[in-house]
Amino acid sequence: MGTSMRAALAFAGGSGQLADIDSSARPELPIKKNGKAKKPKQLQDELTGAAERIAEVQEALWAEASGGSKRSLLLVLQGIDTAGKGGTIEHVVSACGPIGVEYTAFKRPTKTELRYDFLWRIRRKLPPPGVVGIFDRSHYEDVLVARVHDLVPSDVLDARYDSINAFERELVDAGTTVLKCLLHISYDTQRERLLSRLEDPRKHWKFKVADLDERARWADYQAAFQAMLAKCDTDVAPWFVVPADSKAYRNWAVGELLRETLETMSPQYPPGDLDVPALVKRLAPPH
Amino acid sequence: MGTSMRAALAFAGGSGQLADIDSSARPELPIKKNGKAKKPKQLQDELTGAAERIAEVQEALWAEASGGSKRSLLLVLQGIDTAGKGGTIEHVVSACGPIGVEYTAFKRPTKTELRYDFLWRIRRKLPPPGVVGIFDRSHYEDVLVARVHDLVPSDVLDARYDSINAFERELVDAGTTVLKCLLHISYDTQRERLLSRLEDPRKHWKFKVADLDERARWADYQAAFQAMLAKCDTDVAPWFVVPADSKAYRNWAVGELLRETLETMSPQYPPGDLDVPALVKRLAPPH
Repeated sequence: MGTSMRAALAFAGGSGQLADIDSSARPELPIKKNGKAKKPKQLQDELTGAAERIAEVQEALWAEASGGSKRSLLLVLQGIDTAGKGGTIEHVVSACGPIGVEYTAFKRPTKTELRYDFLWRIRRKLPPPGVVGIFDRSHYEDVLVARVHDLVPSDVLDARYDSINAFERELVDAGTTVLKCLLHISYDTQRERLLSRLEDPRKHWKFKVADLDERARWADYQAAFQAMLAKCDTDVAPWFVVPADSKAYRNWAVGELLRETLETMSPQYPPGDLDVPALVKRLAPPH
Repeated sequence: MGTSMRAALAFAGGSGQLADIDSSARPELPIKKNGKAKKPKQLQDELTGAAERIAEVQEALWAEASGGSKRSLLLVLQGIDTAGKGGTIEHVVSACGPIGVEYTAFKRPTKTELRYDFLWRIRRKLPPPGVVGIFDRSHYEDVLVARVHDLVPSDVLDARYDSINAFERELVDAGTTVLKCLLHISYDTQRERLLSRLEDPRKHWKFKVADLDERARWADYQAAFQAMLAKCDTDVAPWFVVPADSKAYRNWAVGELLRETLETMSPQYPPGDLDVPALVKRLAPPH
């Protein structure tokens, strides 16, 4: 029940500068018998093992809530376009659920959503007790795309960081463990992935010409990520930065973060108060 | 792209009597090289293969909707307590998603839900375009538990069957394919499964003493299932009865029904209108 991946990828563990984090690094890779670190492609078995453990603990969390526990887990995934939020979810999260798991992708806000405070639509999708909630993008878009595109005045933007910190503290106080992961890729990796989408007609539906306009704002996005990490990496809801140039490493690392976090929560099956012998007797076949 | 499982398990294909369907039967089992049918325990490979295909077609359905298609799939699972709705979902559905898959378990209606028509809470959980919706229990509870426990006057109950048929026709007309599966087990199988829950402390949280009171109404539930099948097995939304005494057969059979249904829908990736050479040029690395 170690927490070595959490320690290795905690934003607070570094210099506090996203630019100092190597997106091709692979901290905590398991060691092979010959003493060398496993290559990312050799991580599939480890990921499968972690996935089974995640499914096991997730079921216990779901069961625990039936006994009255208010605990839940919220996994927040952020990352620039092509960083691999969808792929991570497909490979890591699909190991458990769908019972007790709720997935929400936050797209561009609708007209209705824009009439409310930015946290309104987020609150409606929070995981209830026992549930693992997965946010594919989140309230952080409101300090990322909103900052890059100057969607709100700077004083409104500044206030949002404080609102987010207060919101997450409220969640944690209410029993939700918050696991925030930024998938971190390089400018070159994004280029390769956009090219590969263009080369595969089955991926054209995911491609928007506007994606290239966003790519032109790369430096602005990095600055927005840096501000988000610096301002919202709190004790109660810390940020983890996952080097994500390697898909295999990224999937394995998020799996480990999720496994460690669930194991630290250590959910317990509710104590039974059944009169088992009497119930078994009632089930005896008729003579 | 056969539909042999749909043909084999269609309620309309039999005598029209649930009591005539053997819950331990295993129609359409694949044949081994020696000419014998595979045993249920040998079906795991087939289920894995079907799951990969399900995931592939489900992704195409999700992609198709981004091009404006309104099509979706609704899988309705019904069955008496311990019939294996949760286990089926865990083994079959978890192969795809969570992106583009929405799972809803309908519990005893809340006070708020009871203030509305019985279809109100159902409509709120219908799958949007591109999504595979999974209903773990459904609007059919309102003609099952409601009938067994006389929760509504008989004229209200009778009207519900017609309401359900009209509702499902509306769904189909709007682009939703409806796949309804009744997991069918024997009285003895339920006894074995309740006993096994009692023997495993990790399953006690699932056990309610009231489950035994419901078991005492076995014949009433069978009559309610028979009425549901007879009245709501329509051309647009037929019922399938899955023999479910064997968990391995049940998982495999539902997987096949889902695979056949998705393949018959044959979702298509939206045609791309991208100027690929121009976009590739924009992505060329700076000199």
